[in-house]
Amino acid sequence: MKLPRKRGRPKRPLEDADARNRLIREGLVFLTERGYSAAGVNDILDAAGVPKGSFYHYFKSKADFGSQLIDAYAAYFAKKLDRSLSDESLDPLGRLRAFVEDAAEGMARHDFTRGCLVGNLGQEMGLLPDDFREKLRAIFAAWEARVRVCLEMARDQGQISRIQKADTLARFFWIGWEGAVLRAKLDRCRDPLDTFANVFFEMIES
Amino acid sequence: MKLPRKRGRPKRPLEDADARNRLIREGLVFLTERGYSAAGVNDILDAAGVPKGSFYHYFKSKADFGSQLIDAYAAYFAKKLDRSLSDESLDPLGRLRAFVEDAAEGMARHDFTRGCLVGNLGQEMGLLPDDFREKLRAIFAAWEARVRVCLEMARDQGQISRIQKADTLARFFWIGWEGAVLRAKLDRCRDPLDTFANVFFEMIES
Repeated sequence: MKLPRKRGRPKRPLEDADARNRLIREGLVFLTERGYSAAGVNDILDAAGVPKGSFYHYFKSKADFGSQLIDAYAAYFAKKLDRSLSDESLDPLGRLRAFVEDAAEGMARHDFTRGCLVGNLGQEMGLLPDDFREKLRAIFAAWEARVRVCLEMARDQGQISRIQKADTLARFFWIGWEGAVLRAKLDRCRDPLDTFANVFFEMIES
Repeated sequence: MKLPRKRGRPKRPLEDADARNRLIREGLVFLTERGYSAAGVNDILDAAGVPKGSFYHYFKSKADFGSQLIDAYAAYFAKKLDRSLSDESLDPLGRLRAFVEDAAEGMARHDFTRGCLVGNLGQEMGLLPDDFREKLRAIFAAWEARVRVCLEMARDQGQISRIQKADTLARFFWIGWEGAVLRAKLDRCRDPLDTFANVFFEMIES
């Protein structure tokens, strides 16, 4: 009887075109669950089934790997965000609500063990390579810009009651949302996400 | 010339009544800066000037140490919070504002490198000893209860405009506040704390 070939023991690791993708994918899991400092490169290699010797074939260092993970997460999340915020079947605030729902379902799928990679890294800022800070700040700025546009549309369509500055409100949303994701991890349920979103919408809606 | 005695090299470590306190103090620094997983017991012993051999004289394990650090932080923070929230020279919302100011000044003093221990640990939930979760949730519940009382007073005195449920609003405050602390660490300035607090107060004030 031939045993099934062990996943992740490719015969020719250095030519495995898929290995880099697997490292990125597993790296994202480790970083969203544990953060950067606690994520061991060896554990990630194991999880991805990539032989230890070949890590430096794909990345210059753990910092380089981390940096590419941030890029990959930013690209993934931008798509996720746009899917909701560009949904023309919904009104502007409905789009932001759709994002909240999508994110809550995503967290539930992983039993609330995975948070936001950008939030996780923000928490352990003091331990990160210097250039991570500007990268992370730029990502938040991009998310804020997307939500600002959505809130401006909501304001123009009369969905927002008070005279709120859309840029401040967008910043407020992301500040609080990261707190809600953190808390959902702690509480292991979506209630913090819903509490934050419900009060937020209740406060701004006309 | 007699060299000054090196701080943290007490001659009789096992009888050093202060060593446990120093370990707690340095442990709190490590946990608020780095979180639990990335905090090495050896580094904390070094920082506290306590010989490695004596760690188990004071604590059963890293988990026991962590658990006692959470208790110490909870006690420290409860006092900090009460100092502002029980300040009878201020009106109810003024007290909550005083807490925000106090916390922002505290973060500034450490150049925004230290966050909230409870928030940090929430972020790395998946890596923590099981009993940390309930401990951390109980701390949030206690903080929420304190802020709820403050908001109820504000409502009774007509400071809050809309019909807001004080308990939901208190929960909302802490969810968002932890996000603001995280973001202040990333941005290395108090602006996220101010943005969150200003919008929060603006939204609820009459």
